[in-house]
Amino acid sequence: MVHKVAGPEIERLISLLAKLPGLGPRSARRAALHLIKKRESLLEPLAASMSETAQKIEICSNCGNVDVLEPCAICRDERRDHTMIVVVEEVGDLWALERAKVTKARYHVLGGVLSPLDGITPQDLNLNQLIERARTNSVCEVLLALNATIEGQSTSHYIMEQLAPCNVKISQLAHGVPVGGELDYLDEGTLAAAVKARKEM
Amino acid sequence: MVHKVAGPEIERLISLLAKLPGLGPRSARRAALHLIKKRESLLEPLAASMSETAQKIEICSNCGNVDVLEPCAICRDERRDHTMIVVVEEVGDLWALERAKVTKARYHVLGGVLSPLDGITPQDLNLNQLIERARTNSVCEVLLALNATIEGQSTSHYIMEQLAPCNVKISQLAHGVPVGGELDYLDEGTLAAAVKARKEM
Repeated sequence: MVHKVAGPEIERLISLLAKLPGLGPRSARRAALHLIKKRESLLEPLAASMSETAQKIEICSNCGNVDVLEPCAICRDERRDHTMIVVVEEVGDLWALERAKVTKARYHVLGGVLSPLDGITPQDLNLNQLIERARTNSVCEVLLALNATIEGQSTSHYIMEQLAPCNVKISQLAHGVPVGGELDYLDEGTLAAAVKARKEM
Repeated sequence: MVHKVAGPEIERLISLLAKLPGLGPRSARRAALHLIKKRESLLEPLAASMSETAQKIEICSNCGNVDVLEPCAICRDERRDHTMIVVVEEVGDLWALERAKVTKARYHVLGGVLSPLDGITPQDLNLNQLIERARTNSVCEVLLALNATIEGQSTSHYIMEQLAPCNVKISQLAHGVPVGGELDYLDEGTLAAAVKARKEM
């Protein structure tokens, strides 16, 4: 229990800021002071931006992405590849792939991974919609771009089984040495995968 | 230049969040996603709290504290000690002293420290009001609780000179070994101060 020293309005702001990932009680207090100091240049625009986002944001009914458009801008974009669906766990993973500009395909956001210990079952994920999308004629390949964690990999296997009746190629991201990575710092699993999947030069 | 992947509304939210102390571009993106996921429990309340704070917050004309009341709750509180003023650099320092519950005195927030290199002169600080307050009959002591930095200490000396004509005792925080501190980790300046100000047991 932290001793309250500012007024209730400021304390409420601090306690809400402390719920953001990456901010603890101490840094939330610093952030609140910073906001109060920069009332016109930061506090007011941020309040307006949050309120606008809260009003306008939609979850895309096709792929699970978040956007102010429904369907989202990626699903609407006719220039994107109709033949491949890239399956990711969270919207943040979609953003990471978009930043890297590595694919022109469309996405499918699962909204998590299977985790029996946390009670997350296939019903909790955006899976039925994926199977429906994979059944459409234009789709030839589903790339499972889930995290290389135990949950991510077992979810990949589950999805692979579910997609078996659909007439699509199923792929997953390659494992190996990260570009710029030093062998000395890599775990045995990564090194084993990199050796196994070695390429002739 | 970061590649924009979300819509302009979300990108704007991310770039505003990235201006908070403690959040960089990557953690701002994570924070934005977290807010979008928790629209009802976090995004909407935080937007409302920020907008309320932006509308209601005032800088106390007496002491420079921030509060929704003017004068602030501390200056209004008749139970507080009228005889001492504790001078601090920033509102965060006032909060730290209030959390520690070490004084029932009132405060005076300078809003910074003298720093010729950064162009911060006495005119930029809340100093005239301090001298006026120190002249009132009820005030007997001014405690300079500035940070133990070069700027903090030289500002303390400047304030001491300015307050010389007022009939008040001027004090500063004691230097020494922090409670729970290990000698091995302390700098020479702190150790020298602790030895010089040693106390008989």
